[in-house]
Amino acid sequence: MSTTQKIRYSDCDPQGIVFNANYARYWDDAITDWFEELGFGGTELGGIGVDVVTARLEIDFKAAARLGDTLVTEAAVERFGETSMTVLVDTSRESDGLTVAVGRAVYVFVKPADFRPIAVPESFREAAARNVGTSG
Amino acid sequence: MSTTQKIRYSDCDPQGIVFNANYARYWDDAITDWFEELGFGGTELGGIGVDVVTARLEIDFKAAARLGDTLVTEAAVERFGETSMTVLVDTSRESDGLTVAVGRAVYVFVKPADFRPIAVPESFREAAARNVGTSG
Amino acid sequence: MSTTQKIRYSDCDPQGIVFNANYARYWDDAITDWFEELGFGGTELGGIGVDVVTARLEIDFKAAARLGDTLVTEAAVERFGETSMTVLVDTSRESDGLTVAVGRAVYVFVKPADFRPIAVPESFREAAARNVGTSG
Amino acid sequence: MSTTQKIRYSDCDPQGIVFNANYARYWDDAITDWFEELGFGGTELGGIGVDVVTARLEIDFKAAARLGDTLVTEAAVERFGETSMTVLVDTSRESDGLTVAVGRAVYVFVKPADFRPIAVPESFREAAARNVGTSG
Repeated sequence: MSTTQKIRYSDCDPQGIVFNANYARYWDDAITDWFEELGFGGTELGGIGVDVVTARLEIDFKAAARLGDTLVTEAAVERFGETSMTVLVDTSRESDGLTVAVGRAVYVFVKPADFRPIAVPESFREAAARNVGTSG
Repeated sequence: MSTTQKIRYSDCDPQGIVFNANYARYWDDAITDWFEELGFGGTELGGIGVDVVTARLEIDFKAAARLGDTLVTEAAVERFGETSMTVLVDTSRESDGLTVAVGRAVYVFVKPADFRPIAVPESFREAAARNVGTSG
Repeated sequence: MSTTQKIRYSDCDPQGIVFNANYARYWDDAITDWFEELGFGGTELGGIGVDVVTARLEIDFKAAARLGDTLVTEAAVERFGETSMTVLVDTSRESDGLTVAVGRAVYVFVKPADFRPIAVPESFREAAARNVGTSG
Repeated sequence: MSTTQKIRYSDCDPQGIVFNANYARYWDDAITDWFEELGFGGTELGGIGVDVVTARLEIDFKAAARLGDTLVTEAAVERFGETSMTVLVDTSRESDGLTVAVGRAVYVFVKPADFRPIAVPESFREAAARNVGTSG
């Protein structure tokens, strides 16, 4: 799964590079696209009454990205826990493949009403497994 | 009514000045503070079952603000319509009073369920009138 | 000239709709794309030593856009002044063409060093005129 | 060192809670305030010709913050490396002290011209040490 993001003027700070917090946003965009691709887009995971919250982010900033760059963010499930999913994320520059930011994000599946953790839905787990199978 | 906003690093763009869209956000913050001050904070205007959406923004950018500046945003009701409220907004630099951005915002009162316009609540209109009276 | 923007989760607020200030950002993105298309991308208008600042925004919010929507922002020069350019902007929903936000933006050409207005570069004026010719 | 941040409407997403990437922004704000407090504010660390970039972020999201909450972000140096500084960060709800997000941020001192790492300036290291001493 990969998402392409063109760097926007407002993404850059006075240093002329992408402001660090925007990578967390790029990663959220990439994960959201991946959920959609699996058929669990929109609110409450496409209608199955489940929501997802971010539990942890680890981001290593490896290089600076600038206006004019386009970034490619790839995500792959590292492991599923009882109620969580750990995703490896890698953002690189499209032009030359240079890794710009890399790390992992942990998501927890919750009930929309009270944000309490619930087991990863079996249908989601299966869709994610199939997705890995088909894309490589 | 006035709200003070310290300019943040991420508010500034590669030109080293506050990115234009952030003024719309500063204005939203100022209006939200004013609603709170009138007793209509939080969701559904403090529990009276009414919401507000932005219908129009007019912003004239008069000067550039930079990291290190603190801005003061003042808002004053220009007029009430049947379902709307027009607010004059002025954002100036705290250090010397220089106007940085000035204009108006029009808000429409709506039903939260379907965003359809409804009459300006009488209680809000009265609170706004009293607020003008006491602050000058 | 048109730019397509997929609405992102972080663009939406607790009302579940695109937060008003994000339209100013979408418009900035669209104008930036148009400058690039004309050959004046990047810093200092592609190296001619000129910068552009936003002098005025007028935005009428006509409808709410939500997660799952894709927006198309079109911009067209309304007029050139001595040092400025007024652009008509229209953002609509890609699925059905519904206008979501419409208005105008005024840009002023400045010297990068001190942000003082300068005459619209003739090369830019000509490129903009040709662009209108070819696209419609 | 602590920075107080009022949660803004545009900080919150359709789940009604602060969007995850905004914590990276809150942390950047807090660190920036701390640099100012130490006398190294503004560009190039208050004029000593040094810049700082974010090299790593680790954020554990412990609880959801909502509109109406005010957050307090505290930062404390964990260790200095040759060219880097690791800071422990803790963001809690002002009303009851509940930890909302906790983790660490690693910053690298660089030359502004090319973003290449340089040794932590001795004057900064000393100011940071004194600051720890006086505040606890």
